[in-house]
Order: sequence, then structure tokens, then C-alpha cells
Amino acid sequence: MSQAAAPSDPVGPADPADPAALAGRGRPAAPAPPAAPVKVAVLGLGTVGGEVVRLLAESAGDLACRVGAPLELVGVAVKDPAARPRPAGLDRALLTDDAIGLAGRADVVVELIGGIEPARGAILAAFAAGASVVTANKALLAAHGPELYEAARRAGVDLYFEAAVAGAIPILRPLRESLAGDTVTRVLGIVNGTTNYVLDQMTSNGLDLAAAVRQAQKLGYAEADPSADVDGHDAAAKAAILASLAFHTRIPAAGVYRQGIGAVTAADVAAARATGHVIKLLAIVERRESRGVIARVHPALVPLAHPLAAVRGAFNAVYVEAEAAGELMFYGRGAGGLPTASAVVGDIVTVARHKVGGTLGPGESTYLSLPALPVAEALTRLQIRLVVRDEPGVLAAVAEVIAGHGVSIEAVRQTPGSHGAGLADLTVVTHQAAEGALQATVGALAGLDAVAQVAGAIRVEGE
Amino acid sequence: MSQAAAPSDPVGPADPADPAALAGRGRPAAPAPPAAPVKVAVLGLGTVGGEVVRLLAESAGDLACRVGAPLELVGVAVKDPAARPRPAGLDRALLTDDAIGLAGRADVVVELIGGIEPARGAILAAFAAGASVVTANKALLAAHGPELYEAARRAGVDLYFEAAVAGAIPILRPLRESLAGDTVTRVLGIVNGTTNYVLDQMTSNGLDLAAAVRQAQKLGYAEADPSADVDGHDAAAKAAILASLAFHTRIPAAGVYRQGIGAVTAADVAAARATGHVIKLLAIVERRESRGVIARVHPALVPLAHPLAAVRGAFNAVYVEAEAAGELMFYGRGAGGLPTASAVVGDIVTVARHKVGGTLGPGESTYLSLPALPVAEALTRLQIRLVVRDEPGVLAAVAEVIAGHGVSIEAVRQTPGSHGAGLADLTVVTHQAAEGALQATVGALAGLDAVAQVAGAIRVEGE
Repeated sequence: MSQAAAPSDPVGPADPADPAALAGRGRPAAPAPPAAPVKVAVLGLGTVGGEVVRLLAESAGDLACRVGAPLELVGVAVKDPAARPRPAGLDRALLTDDAIGLAGRADVVVELIGGIEPARGAILAAFAAGASVVTANKALLAAHGPELYEAARRAGVDLYFEAAVAGAIPILRPLRESLAGDTVTRVLGIVNGTTNYVLDQMTSNGLDLAAAVRQAQKLGYAEADPSADVDGHDAAAKAAILASLAFHTRIPAAGVYRQGIGAVTAADVAAARATGHVIKLLAIVERRESRGVIARVHPALVPLAHPLAAVRGAFNAVYVEAEAAGELMFYGRGAGGLPTASAVVGDIVTVARHKVGGTLGPGESTYLSLPALPVAEALTRLQIRLVVRDEPGVLAAVAEVIAGHGVSIEAVRQTPGSHGAGLADLTVVTHQAAEGALQATVGALAGLDAVAQVAGAIRVEGE
Repeated sequence: MSQAAAPSDPVGPADPADPAALAGRGRPAAPAPPAAPVKVAVLGLGTVGGEVVRLLAESAGDLACRVGAPLELVGVAVKDPAARPRPAGLDRALLTDDAIGLAGRADVVVELIGGIEPARGAILAAFAAGASVVTANKALLAAHGPELYEAARRAGVDLYFEAAVAGAIPILRPLRESLAGDTVTRVLGIVNGTTNYVLDQMTSNGLDLAAAVRQAQKLGYAEADPSADVDGHDAAAKAAILASLAFHTRIPAAGVYRQGIGAVTAADVAAARATGHVIKLLAIVERRESRGVIARVHPALVPLAHPLAAVRGAFNAVYVEAEAAGELMFYGRGAGGLPTASAVVGDIVTVARHKVGGTLGPGESTYLSLPALPVAEALTRLQIRLVVRDEPGVLAAVAEVIAGHGVSIEAVRQTPGSHGAGLADLTVVTHQAAEGALQATVGALAGLDAVAQVAGAIRVEGE
């Protein structure tokens, strides 16, 4: 036991500067040799980077014990090393604007710059120098994942990115490792906290979309330009990563069907509630046996009884269906500096352990070359809200059009019109059918004389 | 690409007998050398063992691609090799009654015998022969974990046991690896599906305990002798494992306070509902900074708004609170042959990958020697249901006794007595206080003249 440890903390972590203290405390020392420090470089000092640097300092003793060697922060790359403020306690001599140079002199490089370049170049430089990489960069992984995996494999180093999907929630490691013996058939995820917060505000407080987005911006949940979230780009990148890991194949972000929440109205939200649903932006990836993978991001009606319906505010959750495991759900904070830093530092510990032990984690598993299928092949259900003429024969006409597209109806509900005299609201919920047939059905209904307006058509998922 | 693959399955798994096919399909072959088969021995052919053997056969191609080498089942140890029935397709020549001998001739030994012996001896024999071990045996781990970890470490092999806690739910790998950079402060788990089913039946269908247990037995959720589940032994073993992993220390099952659901009445369940709660059997492990760990298993009132309240039927869920990650929840099937087999085969793939790559997973992390603290030090809240004399001054007397123990009251509700003339029901919910003070309070209330009966006293958790 290290005599240098604070006497007021008799069971606290060992002094990381004392290698003997790392081997075990209060029990016979394990015969592990003292290990050299693992050199860690952090690229990017934004919200997440700041918290990572803080955790590395504050938890140094614990992390050293868990890794089997101290983690030594050898540098932090920032755009402007002279800028302020910086995290308290950070030695400013560690700051550099040379991300690529820094990446070449560490054992573990933590890429938190975001975007494509210079993040991609710095990661490749890290691999070339024999460093393992931890990143939270979903956009880069979705766009250049295969190149990065291949570079890591050639260099014999690790590429870990738990924080790239669903923030603090451990979902990638379970998919890559825990479920490696199972056959995943479908993943449904609420993987964008901003849009979940916005939809939750619309549901709980009756806000319209614009007001809910402003509220999210005020609380720091949404960017000044919220389009990456609102339009589903962020969720689509995560869907590509989830699909690739779940199905052992490569699905690029371009293979993900994407529809954001920009068209969701307060009326949609109210209609959802009236039928026992909430609207969620879902990332859905499903395997259609050996034919391929369908990956899609769109708003969906989720029944209140489904576990995903209870995911409130900026929380994330990923619901996994596997042949042997059945249904699993992983729930937690999907964004925010500190929760995301938890996932990043977890990955740092993992790859640092590998460095100390001379081992490697599992690499890319893409032995199946499953194509990304068009969304028209997806099987889904649709809740169609029509404003119709309030006269005999309308329901028959609507039902005939729907049946004519090979779609069957699960439920119909006609309510007194809120759209003026002579009009009625007609809500139709279909049984499961191909997306293509359902969209053609909606188009045909819009052309019916009896239909004044298609007020909404939202997919129903999670049943 | 293997020409031997079924032509009707153009993107199916590679032929595991063709090493070239394992390197990659439809892309340039990776330069990995053909790997020798990984020899797998399964000890025990019960519900879980049967499903594991079936999955190993049915998913052989996929598993070979994921591991990088075929998995070869070299034997299955059973009590009586001549007994029937056996899983369809299982080569009876693989059956043996010599578990220890079989354990000595495999690369990966899968222990599914359960209980202490001969499971412990077979695992030690496997380690001695250089085999890694996958087990689902929570009782053995809770009783002999340190010995097994130490033997694995000395032998330089893996010990994995994801299936030992919460069946199919990936919870141990997240605790050991994903959260390795964080500080876990508390884990609340519904880790026994039998008792959760029983309590859910009592809640949803108004059954009393005995009827709900019979129902669970009829459906195969409960054993003929349900005491291991009902009395909380199973949950206590899992709590010990969770505490050890979450807090990097060794907590034996004997260090876990245990109270089963045997005393939970239909009246308790009704009273819970009346105050917006459900009763769950929780395994709670919490770290009291550097002082130690409190691990306890007992029935608790969980507010309906808490994610654990929605865990129905035989499902399990583990709720984790960590300093950086915040709240996380892991949800899924906690029992059953097939879900448990998913976790077992996931571990088989992991340790087989390590065998092929010449690497090892993280070993035991117990660098903190935190003591198991007595439950009297736990901080909790209590809902106390009293039958009192319906006369002036009773509430004052009750409040005085409670205050006299340093406990403060959050809410009091007095309702017309259902216990006869002159009596009233008084429900008191305390603020958080030390368990010891709360139990002393209940004892003192029972001795009050004004109190005819303490009808119930249940802890409130998850707020």
C-alpha cells in the first residue's frame, strides 16, 4: 500500500506514481511488473474534451489501478492554444495546435474534434504511429468507417468509439461483444437527444415545433443551426454505425433512409396521444434475412406500452431484438459533455489495458456483405389522418383505395370534423405492409374526390 | 468466397470448414492465416446447456466468421450419458459423464452444471489445463469468485460469466469495461425473474403470494422448491457479483443483507398502488465513498415514474448510477434457456477470439478493499402502515416517537379504518434516514398504546 496515499482515505486509490501500489491493496501483491505510463493525447477541447481531461486528472489514481499503469496526458490539441478559458488545472504547456504531430507521439489518441477533417487525418496519423484511437465522431465513422478500421487493422491497434452512438449508454460494446453469439434481427433507437427533447416538449407541454426547438436551444440541447439534429442527419450516421455492428456488414450513412422531424405538427402530436401513442424520431435498422439490411430514420408513432415510449427529455435508448436474447433495451443519457466523457474514458481504459497487456480488442466484423435495401421494402404500418367530406359512401371509397393497393386496415375512427361544416376527420391505421405500397396508398387517397386533405401519415413502430 | 456455401444464400455465413472463407466475403481477403478450430466443451445439458449446444451447431458458420476460427464441440458432460431425450442433432458420442476429464481437453470450457461441486472442481481443472471458462453459475461465483479469478489469472486464461446476472442482459461487460472510466455510485437491480413475475401477478391480477407462486411454478418460472428465489438467495448472489464489479472490490454473498418476498401480502401490494408505487424485489449495492459498500436485497416500493417500475413479468433490469454517465438502465430477459444461452455463446465467442488472437480480457479488478457495511448504515425511506385508535392525539403521539428517533416525516395519510370500529389506518412515509434508526422507530411505534398494529413497513427506493 502506498504510504503516499492520503491518510484520510484508507481505501482510496493507489498512488499512480508508485507502481507497486498498482498491483493490489490490502492483499498479497500480484506479481505484475511495474508498467510504463500509457501516453494519452486528446484532440479537441470542447464540451466533451474538457470533461475527458478533467476526469483523467481527477480519477488518475483509480484509472491507473484499472489499467495497470498510469495514464499520462501528453498533450491537448486545440485550434488556438492562446485562447481562454481552459479547464481548471490543465497545464497550458500541454496545449498545441498541431493535432497531427501530437497524434504521432501518444499510445492512445482521443479524437474529439468532430467532423471529417482534420479528424480523419489525425486518426490516420495516430494509426501510422502505432497508437490506438478512441473517438466519439459518428459523422466520420459513418462516412469513412471502413478506411479507419482497415488502417487500425494494418497497424495492429484498436479503434474504439462507444461515445459515437447514444453517449454514455454502453451499446456498441454489447453489440460487438455481448451479442456476438446471437443473431440480431432489429434495432430501434432513440439516438438523438435533441429531437427527443423537442418531441417530448411538444407532447408534454403542447409546444409547436419552432417553440420546442427554441426551448432546446435555450437549454443548450440544440445548436444555433439545429438542422443536423432536426433533419435526422445525426441519427442517420448513428443508424449506419448500429446497422454495421448489429449485422456484421458495412452500411454507409448514404444507405440510410432519412426523414427528420421538421414536418411534425402539434396536430400530429395531439392525434398520436388520442390513439395511445407518442411520436419519437426512431433510427430503425433491420435485417431481412440474407436479402439485405433496411436502415431508416423517421418520426414514428410508438405505443405508450412500449419501453421506448417512456424515454423522456434528452435521454436516449436503444431497443435490440435478437433471436436468442429476445428484447433488450439500453437506456441513458445520449449527449452532454460529462456523460459522453464517461464513454470516452471507458474506451481509453479499455485500449490502455490492451496496450499494457499487449493485446487487442475485436476488430471490424463485416463478414457478411449485406446490401442496404431501399426503404420501399421496409414493412411498417401507417396511421393516416384524412379530412373527408361528411357524406355517405366516403368510408367505402377510402377502404376500396386502400384495399386496391394490397393494404389491409386494422382500425378506422371517424370523428366530427374540426375543419368546418360538411367535413369529418377520418383516421385509418393499416396493418403491416410494404412502405412502397403504403406511400402509393397515401398518394391515391390524396387524389380521391371524397378526401379534402391528407392531414398526416405517420408510421407506427414498436408493436 | 466459399463455393461450398448454399447457393440459395448468397450472403450467408462462410463455410467454417474452409479457412479461406473466414477472412472476408465479397471483399479482398484479409491476410489472416487459417486458424485451427477452437475446442469447446459444455458441462451440463439442462435448459441452458441444451440451447447452447443447439446455437453452436445452428450458428456454426456465423460464429466461425466472428471468432476467426471454427468452434468445435469436443464433448458434453452429463450425469447419465445414456439418459434421453437429448437435443436433436447432438452426436451422442460427444456425451460423457467425466466433466473433469472433458474440461482438461478443451480450449474453452462452458460450465452450466450449477451449484458448487462438481462445477468448481471442473472449472479449476479447466484452468489447470490452460482452458478459458465461461459460466452462468452465480452461486459459485458469489461463494468462490476470488479463488476462481486467481486461478484464471495464474493460468493466463479468461473467466467470463455474463449469463450469471440478469440472463441475456449485457450488464457485467458494461460494468467491467464500458464503465471502467467512471465511478459507479449505486446499482439497483431487478435480477430475479421469478420474484418479479410473482410480484407482478400480485400487482396486476390481485393474486396473493401463494397463488402467484403456484402460477409461476405452472409456467416454469419457479422451481418446485421456490425458496432460492422467494427468499432472495439468488438475488443476493447476483448482488454480490454486481457489487464486486461495480466497486472494484470483493463483496461475498455473505456480505449481502437479504430479505425475500415471503412476507409481502396482497394488502401491501394494494397499499403500494394506492400511493403510486409498485413493489419490486430489488438488489441494491451502493458505495458509501471510501467507507465501504452496502449490499442488500429486499422488497421495496418503487414509484411508478421510475423506469424500474415498468419492468413487468419475468423481465429483469439493472439501473446503474455513475458520477459521469448519470443514470443508465439495462433491460431484458433475465432467465430462460434461450436468452441465457445468448449471453453464454456471446462469452464463448469473446474468449474464443482471445484464444485465436493470443490475447486476454480484463481480469478481476479489486484494487479497492472496501468492506461490506452493515445494512443498519443504509440510507432509505420507509412507508409505515399503522392501525391506530381513532381518537384525538394519536397522530401527535406517532409523530413524537418518529421525531424522537431523529427521523423526519415526508407525508402522513389517515383513512377511515378498515379494521373495525374505533380504529383508523395511518400511513406514514419518512424522509431518508439510516436503516437502523428507521427499524428502531418501527419497534417503538409497535409499543405505543395508540397503535393497535404495525400493518406493514416497506422501504421506498428509486427516488
